Amino acid sequence: MTAPLHEARPGGPGSRVPDTQQGMRRRNLARVMHTVSAEGPLSRAAVASRIGLTRAAVSTLVDELIRSGLLEELGPERPGRVGRPGSALAVSGRGPAGIGAEIGVDHLAVCAVDLRGEIRARAVRHGTNRGRPPQPVLGELTALVRQVVAAADGEGLWPAGLAVAVPGLVASDARTVVRAPNLDWHDVDLGPLLPSELPSTVDNEANFGSLAELWLGDDTPRDFLHVSAEIGIGGAVVVDGRLLRGTRGFAGELGHVPVRPEGPRCACGGRGCLEQYAGEEAVLRAAGLSPGEHRVELLAERAAQGDQDVRHALRGAGTALGIALTGAVNLLDPGAVVLGGALAGLAPWLLPSLERELARRTAGRACAVTVSRLGSEGPLLGAAHSVVRAVLDDPAGVAGQR
Amino acid sequence: MTAPLHEARPGGPGSRVPDTQQGMRRRNLARVMHTVSAEGPLSRAAVASRIGLTRAAVSTLVDELIRSGLLEELGPERPGRVGRPGSALAVSGRGPAGIGAEIGVDHLAVCAVDLRGEIRARAVRHGTNRGRPPQPVLGELTALVRQVVAAADGEGLWPAGLAVAVPGLVASDARTVVRAPNLDWHDVDLGPLLPSELPSTVDNEANFGSLAELWLGDDTPRDFLHVSAEIGIGGAVVVDGRLLRGTRGFAGELGHVPVRPEGPRCACGGRGCLEQYAGEEAVLRAAGLSPGEHRVELLAERAAQGDQDVRHALRGAGTALGIALTGAVNLLDPGAVVLGGALAGLAPWLLPSLERELARRTAGRACAVTVSRLGSEGPLLGAAHSVVRAVLDDPAGVAGQR
Repeated sequence: MTAPLHEARPGGPGSRVPDTQQGMRRRNLARVMHTVSAEGPLSRAAVASRIGLTRAAVSTLVDELIRSGLLEELGPERPGRVGRPGSALAVSGRGPAGIGAEIGVDHLAVCAVDLRGEIRARAVRHGTNRGRPPQPVLGELTALVRQVVAAADGEGLWPAGLAVAVPGLVASDARTVVRAPNLDWHDVDLGPLLPSELPSTVDNEANFGSLAELWLGDDTPRDFLHVSAEIGIGGAVVVDGRLLRGTRGFAGELGHVPVRPEGPRCACGGRGCLEQYAGEEAVLRAAGLSPGEHRVELLAERAAQGDQDVRHALRGAGTALGIALTGAVNLLDPGAVVLGGALAGLAPWLLPSLERELARRTAGRACAVTVSRLGSEGPLLGAAHSVVRAVLDDPAGVAGQR
Repeated sequence: MTAPLHEARPGGPGSRVPDTQQGMRRRNLARVMHTVSAEGPLSRAAVASRIGLTRAAVSTLVDELIRSGLLEELGPERPGRVGRPGSALAVSGRGPAGIGAEIGVDHLAVCAVDLRGEIRARAVRHGTNRGRPPQPVLGELTALVRQVVAAADGEGLWPAGLAVAVPGLVASDARTVVRAPNLDWHDVDLGPLLPSELPSTVDNEANFGSLAELWLGDDTPRDFLHVSAEIGIGGAVVVDGRLLRGTRGFAGELGHVPVRPEGPRCACGGRGCLEQYAGEEAVLRAAGLSPGEHRVELLAERAAQGDQDVRHALRGAGTALGIALTGAVNLLDPGAVVLGGALAGLAPWLLPSLERELARRTAGRACAVTVSRLGSEGPLLGAAHSVVRAVLDDPAGVAGQR
């Protein structure tokens, strides 16, 4: 099983391609794909002028991309232009697709996204995974993956790779779950449990959520801090359009930034971590509610109904988020803080206290806080799109797979 | 005045060079320079095998670098080898030099570093700059720069550029000091005040200190967090060998990470910032001493003599550093935390409480804390070396300057 080129892993496409004629060709293939993807449909001449190569050079690259099924010709451009009409090029809606999967605490989900970014097939299975061993969970996930791949195949798509989002820390080998406390998984190598027919990669759900925000969000800057929550609090740092992973792949652990150094003990070994004030359990406890299913939905519903205890608990969580984010903003100077995942749905009640706290502590260095449009869909979409981006980043690599 | 290529600024050498034959030649010139710089003296054949180009291609590149005065031939290699003896290549000890300058609160310093990394000239002026307007300070600095350039010229070196370290936030234009509270400078454009004959760049002293650590430190990893102090507390985040600057160039402000959210008010507008516990004034106050000159030296001296008040104050500062670093380690997962600047001299009394606090809060995700060998020399050396690195990164660029 070969790992697919994964957008932001160290040693990704950019660094792997050597600086030779052959490497230059591969990079130029990627430029053509990205240009048509971002601005297409475009004629060959338009592509050539945008990437600064001759039309002849671009035509050779385009022919190769059409042969590999990555680009398609839409037929002659509308008349009225001077000269011979060019044929407009578009990213193919057949050909390779990215398969994204999500192992949630309460569900499994899989989807197929084509090179145009459209979801072409999806499957979901509800039911708790908390405390279940990895084997049956991955067995069910593999069945869902095969179901989605079969559905995509019916539309002329073939899977370029699989990316799996998990609610936990993933080692830099992109397959070992070091710690997923809400599944009760520790040091589990998912590699042998994933469908053997597909190149696969595993990553933390907050990382994939932040990449989805980068690629699919409205006006998301290239430097931002993504804060999400399902049960724990996840964070991800994006710098210049790349995910900051850290030495061991553990970066972005905003949930364990100390808010009050003498505060309550945390499962991580620390005290007064953000999760002790803004994690789901802490908020439910502060609101006088007991843990159960659909917890975040419950909080949002009660808050919307005007439940003062819930609103008070969410205000407190917002304040704690503001304190932890003050540290993060001082360290990273991001272009924005984006609230994603389940936090997006709670934003109306979290944001006022969060923004007040952050603003008064970072006068003159303040940072906008925005709410993700993707919400809880982020990790699954980010996973599928990471495979799609890897194809756009190195089209020559995927062409060889077929 | 053209800004020199600055190692880690956005739009640096890598991104500026287009992907054409000409761009490939420029990148290959850089590869030859870096290879000889890191491993030289080397024969042409050895360079060719290390960078994966033909010997003929390398010879063309080497000839160009010798003509520009960046490489020199040491004469035939020692006999005993098979085949025609090659001439060993070394980085030139004449030719371009990097001029580094430091505007300290209590001193000005300038040095010239050759492409081999050796300091070839330096000048220092002691005396406080606190509260002085920028014009006379920069006038004196310019005189020191010209003195050092003249001394370097006597050794056959010419200045490739000037980099100036300042104790404050610098805008991303690399010339405007947004805020240097200990000089009492706000929104000062240093551009017109710097020697007009040299391409110049200005940056925060903590940034240059961290780059010095990256380039000159012993076994410094490519991902680390650099913590330094002169009067304020400076931080700098290095990720994969590049300085993380943030959207506005304000990243690394570890001094304003909240340690105790309801703690004392800070000049930044926040409360309980790290600087309120581990900044120089706070430590002097905690030790029952009053601010004056040579403050850090005084603390180190008293601590070494066994002064219990000073030791207690430094222990408290170490604890506060440990709390703030817990947040930073969780967010960034660095390969190490490096204590630099004046903190290096205080390390014996800061480290035990700092490490204890950090370790107990980051069990399983702990991070080594090391002490810089460069100490307070870091910013000046980092500034000079940033010019040298820019030459190594784009030798074709500097060759055109002469």
